[in-house]
Amino acid sequence: MNYHFSSRVPKTDIDPVGNILKVVESPDIISFAGGLPAPELFPVKQIAQATAKVLNECGQVALQYGSSQGIPELRKIIAERVKLEGIDTSPDHIMVATGSQQTLDLTGKIFIDPGDTVIVESPTYLCAVDVFKSYGANFVGIDMDDDGMRMDHLEQALSEHPETKLIYTIPNFQNPTGRTMSLDRRKKLSVLADKYDVMVLEDNPYGAVRFAGENVPSVKSLDSTGHVIYMGTFSKILAPGMRLGWIVADESLINKYKMMKQSADLHTDSLSQYIIAKYCELFDIDEHIKLISSLYQKREQLMMAAIQKYFPKNAKCSYPEGGMFIWVEIPEIKDTQALFDLAIKQRVAFVPGEPFYSEHPKPGTFRLNYSNMSEDKIEEGIKRLGKVIQTALLAQEVY
Amino acid sequence: MNYHFSSRVPKTDIDPVGNILKVVESPDIISFAGGLPAPELFPVKQIAQATAKVLNECGQVALQYGSSQGIPELRKIIAERVKLEGIDTSPDHIMVATGSQQTLDLTGKIFIDPGDTVIVESPTYLCAVDVFKSYGANFVGIDMDDDGMRMDHLEQALSEHPETKLIYTIPNFQNPTGRTMSLDRRKKLSVLADKYDVMVLEDNPYGAVRFAGENVPSVKSLDSTGHVIYMGTFSKILAPGMRLGWIVADESLINKYKMMKQSADLHTDSLSQYIIAKYCELFDIDEHIKLISSLYQKREQLMMAAIQKYFPKNAKCSYPEGGMFIWVEIPEIKDTQALFDLAIKQRVAFVPGEPFYSEHPKPGTFRLNYSNMSEDKIEEGIKRLGKVIQTALLAQEVY
Repeated sequence: MNYHFSSRVPKTDIDPVGNILKVVESPDIISFAGGLPAPELFPVKQIAQATAKVLNECGQVALQYGSSQGIPELRKIIAERVKLEGIDTSPDHIMVATGSQQTLDLTGKIFIDPGDTVIVESPTYLCAVDVFKSYGANFVGIDMDDDGMRMDHLEQALSEHPETKLIYTIPNFQNPTGRTMSLDRRKKLSVLADKYDVMVLEDNPYGAVRFAGENVPSVKSLDSTGHVIYMGTFSKILAPGMRLGWIVADESLINKYKMMKQSADLHTDSLSQYIIAKYCELFDIDEHIKLISSLYQKREQLMMAAIQKYFPKNAKCSYPEGGMFIWVEIPEIKDTQALFDLAIKQRVAFVPGEPFYSEHPKPGTFRLNYSNMSEDKIEEGIKRLGKVIQTALLAQEVY
Repeated sequence: MNYHFSSRVPKTDIDPVGNILKVVESPDIISFAGGLPAPELFPVKQIAQATAKVLNECGQVALQYGSSQGIPELRKIIAERVKLEGIDTSPDHIMVATGSQQTLDLTGKIFIDPGDTVIVESPTYLCAVDVFKSYGANFVGIDMDDDGMRMDHLEQALSEHPETKLIYTIPNFQNPTGRTMSLDRRKKLSVLADKYDVMVLEDNPYGAVRFAGENVPSVKSLDSTGHVIYMGTFSKILAPGMRLGWIVADESLINKYKMMKQSADLHTDSLSQYIIAKYCELFDIDEHIKLISSLYQKREQLMMAAIQKYFPKNAKCSYPEGGMFIWVEIPEIKDTQALFDLAIKQRVAFVPGEPFYSEHPKPGTFRLNYSNMSEDKIEEGIKRLGKVIQTALLAQEVY
């Protein structure tokens, strides 16, 4: 039958990244494609203990309808946690969301009218582009270097696009590049947001998973005018399956989010909120995050060493100090989708760079994930990929 | 600060029903206002057992990112359950959602462009009106009688509004009226949907909680052309706090829902999906539903008997055969908000009818909930309310 969809619905069902992730599910493929945390570190037993305690102590409340803003116990814990990012706030200025993805959706719904501009890093998190697009956004991508989004380009874009509603940034260990925005640029970003009266959506899923270098204060902590909305999540520091994210914003803005949240799904899963609050009460989540950071550091170092060994000498890599991704640029490769197809034949996978660009993809780029692959397979996988790249370059198959 | 919101955001923060629900939270108020299931029936211990088993057997998978469509184990169970509604489908045609509310949101996103018409029952579930409004819908409300939405009025509306995108109906024990649509009207609805090429969104949260009369086949089971999207939920038959709903639709449509679901929150809480699937494997959910139905029947009968005793003789009530609500009409009362204010002084509460109407509210109507109040308080609460009504009518305070 012929459905009469809204203009928000993409004409095609083709999902290039979904297709990639399907191809790489085969167990004999060494996949650096996904963006999953290491499941062997999920504190399954501690979560079981926390759950048993929650159901015993307040089962009826945890299974009943709850508040759209999120349970106070969890919002208190979040208010404490964001102090680590330099944010001094109260539980009233926090809303719990069904994962960070929901915050992106609600932000789009609240701010974006068809034709509004959203400024994003180039490249950026592709599901953010998808969701803002569903509200009719146009995109302006801002070039990055090793210090993150370039502020001169940002200012130019802001002056050329006064209809800009939102600047979306992932300042720590960005997806897909692994890059971190310098303190100077964060200060400048906050000043520009104020000057051009534009909201900044600061998405910080990876910041707590730092294994090298020094912590950089969040953009939100540098904001004195209320232009920054801060997003966090338990997905990378505890478990993504429970879909628990949060936002920090001024109270009047939180009220709008609550209203839209109620329309979207009434409230976030109460049982999961109680479980995570109880976990944080019973156990030391910072100790747990140290375990994660230390494993990811080991994997990142292994991958970096293998890249040095097996990739062509002119391959340019980001050197992440945390998070889950390395970004690779090999300018001689013009078509990383063709490279992907060759790599799959050798049972190794990555994500080609193109889908991460809202516009003007840079050829020869791709993303490698190191958090989700065991150490013994990292060297082997990069060795295979290096061979695919060298062979392809020789045969000029990916020009 | 002055935010530049999208045109979707309501200008006001005033939430009349939210305000009502806040007022009635006080423990000395006998509240028939909310729409909550009875928490004393939540199978807390069984859910604890199921959770322990899930975390022990597949903890890492249950805590990891999962499929946007929902876990296959749960979709299989849902495919079996909807057979009770006459629906013969497969897990491929089912998507799990973050509660029924999310299905409403995704349906709005997929079908409604600003200016499109949505046809609703008059009165209807108010959060459905809110969410469709956020996508720019205009509403046409169709009168109901004891057999549900009037099909002659529906056909007239369809012929007058060719821009109609959606007919939204709650055919069983409707919220707020408690009424059930007759089989003849369901057949007619399916024929009209086909004739005018309009989608029907059939929302069935209460259908399984039937304590009198005979089951009526779902509209979906009468649909041969793919015009009906069917919604169900575990909120009223197990526990709402875990936010688990589902839709049944043709596969090509499910693909669009999956795409929008991924934008909205990636996927529904995996842990909760595994817990409910395990609960259904270990325990007999139909036996549990019988317990719920039997308690609600007792409460409904008590409330009906008290209404006969204490309300004015010309009070007209719906006689629900299941679900959670009784609808009252007392034509002499012109202002049920004023009646609400008087009732609160006597420590008893209900929800005035007005917010349930998308247009042209019918004066003198209000909703009573019987599922969430203990038996000993039902008679006392209705007695108080009866006295408030009688006094107010005598004093002409609510004319």
